[in-house]
Amino acid sequence: MELDTARIEELWACARAMADAARVETLRHFRIGVASDNKQQGGFDPVTEGDRAAERAMRAVAAQRRPDDAILGEEYGAQPGTTGLTWVLDPIDGTRAYISGTPTWGVLIAVTDASGPVLGLIDQPYIGERFEGGAGRAAMTGPMGTAPLRTRPTRSLAEATIFTTFPEVGTASEGAAFRAVAGRCKLTRYGMDCYAYALLAAGQIDLVIEAGLSAYDIAAPIAVIEAAGGIVTDWQGGKVHAGGNALAAATPELHAAVLEILSRR
Amino acid sequence: MELDTARIEELWACARAMADAARVETLRHFRIGVASDNKQQGGFDPVTEGDRAAERAMRAVAAQRRPDDAILGEEYGAQPGTTGLTWVLDPIDGTRAYISGTPTWGVLIAVTDASGPVLGLIDQPYIGERFEGGAGRAAMTGPMGTAPLRTRPTRSLAEATIFTTFPEVGTASEGAAFRAVAGRCKLTRYGMDCYAYALLAAGQIDLVIEAGLSAYDIAAPIAVIEAAGGIVTDWQGGKVHAGGNALAAATPELHAAVLEILSRR
Repeated sequence: MELDTARIEELWACARAMADAARVETLRHFRIGVASDNKQQGGFDPVTEGDRAAERAMRAVAAQRRPDDAILGEEYGAQPGTTGLTWVLDPIDGTRAYISGTPTWGVLIAVTDASGPVLGLIDQPYIGERFEGGAGRAAMTGPMGTAPLRTRPTRSLAEATIFTTFPEVGTASEGAAFRAVAGRCKLTRYGMDCYAYALLAAGQIDLVIEAGLSAYDIAAPIAVIEAAGGIVTDWQGGKVHAGGNALAAATPELHAAVLEILSRR
Repeated sequence: MELDTARIEELWACARAMADAARVETLRHFRIGVASDNKQQGGFDPVTEGDRAAERAMRAVAAQRRPDDAILGEEYGAQPGTTGLTWVLDPIDGTRAYISGTPTWGVLIAVTDASGPVLGLIDQPYIGERFEGGAGRAAMTGPMGTAPLRTRPTRSLAEATIFTTFPEVGTASEGAAFRAVAGRCKLTRYGMDCYAYALLAAGQIDLVIEAGLSAYDIAAPIAVIEAAGGIVTDWQGGKVHAGGNALAAATPELHAAVLEILSRR
């Protein structure tokens, strides 16, 4: 969809107002011994009042500023719209991190059209960091001020730092696929949820590989990373904004090297 | 060693001045594509100019304020003293986290006497968080203000959140020992280095288990966690301030339950 400058500024203003509203609600419930409910039978998929209150706050902003856009949110589902644009919202990406008190969860906000993410925002409320990408923008603000986002030029796996959130990654074969890639990398780290995608866009790390994502987990990271010069696809090189297994890479060379390893499995 | 109030205040003032100095040096080199040197033959144990500059800055503070105390630092080794007190310094605990841009590394400062840590400080410069414990103090300051440190009252492994930094933990048998404990816990998370000990002292998580630590990795966490009501020992229940395999627990009940599992292996 072709968007003019005024429309883009309107979308950014709405995204930032949503992120500001979500900061208040997520921090209100952070580190105060907040109870979590388990959403998953036979497993542990926590959700807290922080998640729910933050998504309600973001939906209230949308209702006021962009009432005709569709919404897809993790906690309150899909709401149809008429503009061809959809707000894809994860009020707390990394709820396990949130209930553990770590500063590595984030609020994810994306605007998508039929072809994928138009713009996206990753916000870390406790640190006060915000990463924005898409529609001509690629920048972060945080404790050290404002800086452009640009992936770094790593071309060889042997020089790459790779992240995933859980060491098991996904199924046994998905875990084995990750380890086949990670075993070729210089440094492997865990536990960062969406913060790892922000670090990739900021030129601090080179690869993120995760399995079993939903649209609201990956739409905003795609917008931010692509705006910073990186590449995000599924494990076969196809589009992943609707969810699935994600491969995010700082350069085309790294992306191709990882796809090659994954294709041989 | 019995220390009077004036001496304790002098030590705290020195520890804070060291942490302030280390903040400047660690942040000066953070996220700017800093080069790392490898300290370990056949492996990867990175050290950066951030580590070295921060330790030099802390040693300069000690030379001015406490010239007769001994120093043990990760990068510049041991310097003898005459007071019976030793400053145990890790300028960047989590150098792998630091070179990846994550906000989960820390500056560790402890004062020890012959029996162990007297007081300790864990500082996270990028977030602006400081955790202090020992000699009558147990408190943190950060983005949300000042708060007391107090471990939470979890008594059952089935309700516990457990952290370690690397999924492999240490040797194969050390890794298996960790997994025997983690398999009984509600939630297992990775990748936080010293920040996990700070979260335990702050009542956010319940257990940290790590292998192969040096004195400078664990002396400050021991002081902070014990001041907050927790327990830190080695995997046999003995003292660990000189280094080794560490078990940190929020309550005596959790500590005993973990020791029991480890003793059966």
